[in-house]
Formats: sequence, structure tokens, C-alpha cells
Amino acid sequence: MLNKDINLIEKENCFSKSIEKRIAYQKKHPEADLISLGIGDVSLPVCKPVLKEMKKAIDDLANMKKFPGYGNQLGIKELRKAILDNEYKKYGFSVNEIYVGEGTKTDSTSILELFDKNSTILVSNPSYPIHENGAHILNRKVYKGKVDKEFKMVVPNKKYDLIYLCTPSNPIGNAYTKKELKKWVDYANKNHSVLLIDNVYKPFVRSKDIPDSIYEIKGAKKCAIEFRSFSKECSFTGVRCSYYVIPKEIEKGINKLWDERTINRFNGASYIAQVGALASFKDEAKKENKKHIDTYLRNADYLRKELIKLGFKVIGGINAPYLWCETPDRLESWKAFDLFLKEMNIIVVPGSIFGTSGKYNIRISSLGSMKDSKRAIKRMKEYYEKDY
Amino acid sequence: MLNKDINLIEKENCFSKSIEKRIAYQKKHPEADLISLGIGDVSLPVCKPVLKEMKKAIDDLANMKKFPGYGNQLGIKELRKAILDNEYKKYGFSVNEIYVGEGTKTDSTSILELFDKNSTILVSNPSYPIHENGAHILNRKVYKGKVDKEFKMVVPNKKYDLIYLCTPSNPIGNAYTKKELKKWVDYANKNHSVLLIDNVYKPFVRSKDIPDSIYEIKGAKKCAIEFRSFSKECSFTGVRCSYYVIPKEIEKGINKLWDERTINRFNGASYIAQVGALASFKDEAKKENKKHIDTYLRNADYLRKELIKLGFKVIGGINAPYLWCETPDRLESWKAFDLFLKEMNIIVVPGSIFGTSGKYNIRISSLGSMKDSKRAIKRMKEYYEKDY
Repeated sequence: MLNKDINLIEKENCFSKSIEKRIAYQKKHPEADLISLGIGDVSLPVCKPVLKEMKKAIDDLANMKKFPGYGNQLGIKELRKAILDNEYKKYGFSVNEIYVGEGTKTDSTSILELFDKNSTILVSNPSYPIHENGAHILNRKVYKGKVDKEFKMVVPNKKYDLIYLCTPSNPIGNAYTKKELKKWVDYANKNHSVLLIDNVYKPFVRSKDIPDSIYEIKGAKKCAIEFRSFSKECSFTGVRCSYYVIPKEIEKGINKLWDERTINRFNGASYIAQVGALASFKDEAKKENKKHIDTYLRNADYLRKELIKLGFKVIGGINAPYLWCETPDRLESWKAFDLFLKEMNIIVVPGSIFGTSGKYNIRISSLGSMKDSKRAIKRMKEYYEKDY
Repeated sequence: MLNKDINLIEKENCFSKSIEKRIAYQKKHPEADLISLGIGDVSLPVCKPVLKEMKKAIDDLANMKKFPGYGNQLGIKELRKAILDNEYKKYGFSVNEIYVGEGTKTDSTSILELFDKNSTILVSNPSYPIHENGAHILNRKVYKGKVDKEFKMVVPNKKYDLIYLCTPSNPIGNAYTKKELKKWVDYANKNHSVLLIDNVYKPFVRSKDIPDSIYEIKGAKKCAIEFRSFSKECSFTGVRCSYYVIPKEIEKGINKLWDERTINRFNGASYIAQVGALASFKDEAKKENKKHIDTYLRNADYLRKELIKLGFKVIGGINAPYLWCETPDRLESWKAFDLFLKEMNIIVVPGSIFGTSGKYNIRISSLGSMKDSKRAIKRMKEYYEKDY
């Protein structure tokens, strides 16, 4: 009587196979100095102004006058307000449309609980596997969209109830332009669909034609839920805090329904994480965090240029920390994974993990250190300049 | 296209109505000095040995050599091992059967994702509303069991796939004996059912006939999943950390399936919370935390004795922080709520919130301070000794 839909995702699973291969290789070659360009985690620490406030939050746990207990299932008031004031007031939202979670992985999959169990779900191909897998686990029907040459999903002719768009994109590393998003918003409003916008890489956006938020697009408040996280910007991958917007314009009573759902399914993100997240909106912390993102983007720029010089076809790495690459000889993605592992001792992510149309691609990340990137490029040069 | 099953729970909702009534009363009578005996939160702070380790955890966030990032979806290894060594090794479990979550509210409802979507679910009446509501939100079929004179659910004749048992019980405040649980384990094994044991009030168990864990019962490893929390014992209601056991004996591959599910739906409890939870297993912290629980139990004992003197029928308050009471004149639960609010300025929880069979009961909590309990009893004496 186990949930068979989980077995389904297990079969076509994710990262486990690449991790197993890496572990097996390291066991056989304990001397190998592996460099990971597969990393989705951050390599810069939490900044000091945020750490300082988190320590104060711990003092609150010793003081019953300030003690934080139950009752913040939707997020502490001050944090919801700071998110509103800093990020969403400009689009006309109110605090009741802002929610705090413990991570976008949970938020962006749990949101399906808000919608009818028979809703049809569209994901891109390739796409961040969590959206597809989460939908399977929650017993929803998932369909795969088609993509253009830049691996951006094209607007379908058929109606789907819910559409996941990850922009800036994991794994592609590019982002949908305002013009492209307008097409999606129009499609959604015409079909009474809801767009689920995974916008966690927003801090990496630097190009003018890429919006910071879906709500820059006219009509988006009627059809889009947007998810963001403190993970990358604030180095909170282990601390856990996220936020998202459910506009009241999508449907009457939607916020009340979600409040009820959430009060019954979740007791809120950790108070300490929320206090840290709140501190990240102060000027000093903002400055530090922007420096971190700039560092990753410089790394992405370096990798992009060097990979192109080596003959790779590269998408992304401009408004996002990922580069979506085709090797010079268009290797199948698992073969490319093996080649990088065995010949260069470099870890990359095989594109097939993200869907069938990633068959000839690998994902390279700029979230590691510049030092590691330089060492990896040196090894690639040695390998490819020997071969070609 | 919203999930209609949420509307269903909203209608018969929970605590909101009592909170609204309380707020309305306080607005009309701003001078009223309300005492809450409805509290489910703790009133004692996090102990110092735990706070100290949590501050160190924050230092780890500044140090990339110790930096905790992604990859602890199932719990950090040291914490899973400490839970095993301190709580579950004696029943023969291994570390892969122990999971860390961010709270039992989430864990005990999300567990439904492990089982077939057509599973039938049995909850007690009255019961902790979250189990029933969570099942509705996840679109599962929920049935209500019958209870005996002590408000303990009796073993049904029919088969149900999943059965929630909260022991020690919220809201009843009593606990199932070993003998009673043996009947449930036998039922489950005979019917290939799974028992979902909400055991968060385990630290309150003091009687010898009440087991610390379901796994003291022979055969339980084949049919029971047990949930516990750091919320009460460690005052972690705002910090958020919990744990649970999924025995591999329930079904072949069950742990692997749950690992897959969890890796795709959750990125782990906050590192800081997990470090705090780990510290709670050290001797000094254990001693402090036991003192806290003893304080709540002394409060429960005081309330129990005084309420009985006043003519209340009282169940519970011996191995749990709750007392399940009938007023001397057997008032309907919402009438009792109004009476306590208006005549005594005391907040209680109406039993109807927990199910139809709580119609003539109120839940009183010992998690507040002894000082408040004494003040509340004084008011009750004045009211009832005037009336009777």
C-alpha cells in the first residue's frame, strides 16, 4: 500500500546516480583530487550583520518576555512586512499575500495542495527535477513542455492548470525576458491557469530585459505565484528560510484557504532563521550579500568565456549561476559526466537528470570558488588541447 | 480549481473561532486580565547548555570549513545517531530508520505521502485536529473511531489502512497502556495496517503501565511509525525540530522510498535547530529539561486536584500536560468556553474543537505557569462556590 508514484520518480532519479558514481570513483582512486563544478550549494559564508542578529535571536529563547513560540506559521510579522516593503510593495501587494517558508523546495511543491487534486501540471524539459518529482509524490498528473533553441519552454496550444517556470533557470542558467513572460501571462489569464514562478535566482539578475519579478508583467497578479529564497543571496542553504507571494487577485478567498492549509500543515520556519532573514534587509547586510552574488557572477563570466574558447556551446551564466553546456564533440550527457570524472577529475551534472532534452548537455555551476574554477579550466585545457 | 477538501476543514475549524471570540472580548473589555489555560505552548525557556551550542552553530555559518549547507534532508548524522543511541537502540533500530524533521505537525501529516492515495485513515473522536485536517488537505479519506469512557479509541472490527493514535493524548491528557496498545498492534499486524503514533508527549510519561515508546510492544516494529518532538521537552516550539522512526520491518524498501520522497520535498530542519537538539542529549541539558517537564506535571497535578474539589470530572494530567474536563453542570463545550471567558476571564479550549464526542468537555493545560494556575483556580472557586 505504498505510494507507487514515488517509485516512479525513484527509477528516473536525479542526482543519486551521479553521486554514486562519484563515490565509487573516489573509493577506487583515493588519491584523486576531485573538483566539483556540479555544486548547487554556496561557497561563501553567512555575512556578519546577519550572524549578529541570529545570536540575539538565541538570547530571546532564554527570555520569556521575548520568547518566540507557536503562532508564526505564515511567518513572523516583521519579516513578512520587510519582504513586502523591500520587494513587493511596488507591485501593490499587501502583507497578507506574503508568506514565509523553510525553503523553496518545500514551498514550490507543497503549493500543489492549494489546487484541485485533478489539476494538470506542465513542467519544462529540461527542468529542475523537484517540481516534477514533487507533483508525482503528491499524486498529480505531470506533462512535459517543449523548448526552443535556448531551452526555454514554449507556450503550449493546450490548456494546463498549473505551469512551473524557473526563471532565472536551473539548470539552463538563462532567464525568460519580459516579452517572453508576457506571452505566458496572457496564456495563463486566457486559460485560467496559474503560473508557479520559481524565482530563487532573482539576486543574479543583471540584464535590463529580465524582470526581477513576474509581477513586473501586466496581468501577472491575476495568475502567478512567485517563490524566492534566502539560500543563495544570504548563504542560508543550511539555515533554511524562503518566501513566496500568493496574490489575492488569482481567486477570491485564495489567501484564506492557504492560511488554513498552512496552519494545519506547518508550524513556521525556525525563529532564528527568520530573524536572520529579517536582518538581511538592512543596508549593511544587503551590501555584503550583493558582493557575494557579484563574486559568483564573476566566476560564471570567467567559466563562460573559457568554455567557449575551448569549443563548448554555452547557454546561461549571465543572470544565473549555471552554465548549460554542450561539449565540443556533443557527447551524450552521462558519457560527458564519465569523461570529466575519469579524465579530468571534475564533477559536472549530466543534463539527462533534468529531462530527455538535456541528453547532450552538462550543467556547470559558478557557485564554487574562483580558485576551483581556474584549476578546473586548466585541466580542461590540458585535456581538450591535447585531443583537438 | 482550488482544493475543495481544504474548505471542508475550514468550515469545522479548529482554534480560530475561540481565538476570534477571545479577541472580540478583549477589545470590548480592554481592562480584563485574561488568564490562558488553553495554552499549548511552553512557558519555560530553552535551557542554557542548549543555547550555548546553538550559538556555536551560528559561528559555523561564518566558517567555510564547518559550513553546513545542503545535503542533510534526513537529518544531520550526529543527531540521527544521538536519537538512536539515546532513544531507539534498545529496540534494535539502526540509524537509517531514524529521521529528523522541522516539526511533528509536518511530519505526522506529510507521512501520508508515503502511502497509497486511496488509503483509508482512522482518527479518534475527539482527536488532535491536525491529523484529520492534514489528511483532508492531502485528499485522503478520513473516518472517525469510537471511544470508551476514558475517551480512548477502541479497536474497530473493520480494516483501516492507517490509524492515528496520539499517546499520551492531546487533548485527553491520558495515555494508552501497554495492554491497550498490544491490542492495536495485533489489529494492525492482522490487517496489514500501519499505526501512526503521535508520541510527542513522551517526556511526560511517569506511570509504569504506560510505555515510553510503541516499540516496547511486541510486534510494533512491523506496523508502527512513531513521531516525537523537541518542542515541549526542549522548549523548541519556535526553534522547530522533531524526529520519527520508520521501521524497515513494515515493508521492504520503505526507508528507501521515504528517503527519495524526502530528498524531493524537504531540505532538512535548520542546522541551528539540529545542533540545539543534539545538545539536548547531553547530561546537563537532560537534567534541566527534566526539571521543566516536572514543573509542568506539578502544575497538572495541582490543577487536577483543585478541579476535582470543585466538582469537575477530570481525565488526564498524570502522564501528559492536558486535563480533559466536564464542568459540574455538564455545560456544552462552547457554553463552557463563554462562561469561563465572561465570568472568570479564563481561556479554556472547547472540547468540540477536537470532535463531536468532546461536546461536553473543555481542555485545560498545565503548560502555563503555576502562578497563573493558582490565580485561575481562585477565580473558579469564587465563581463555583458562589453558585453551588
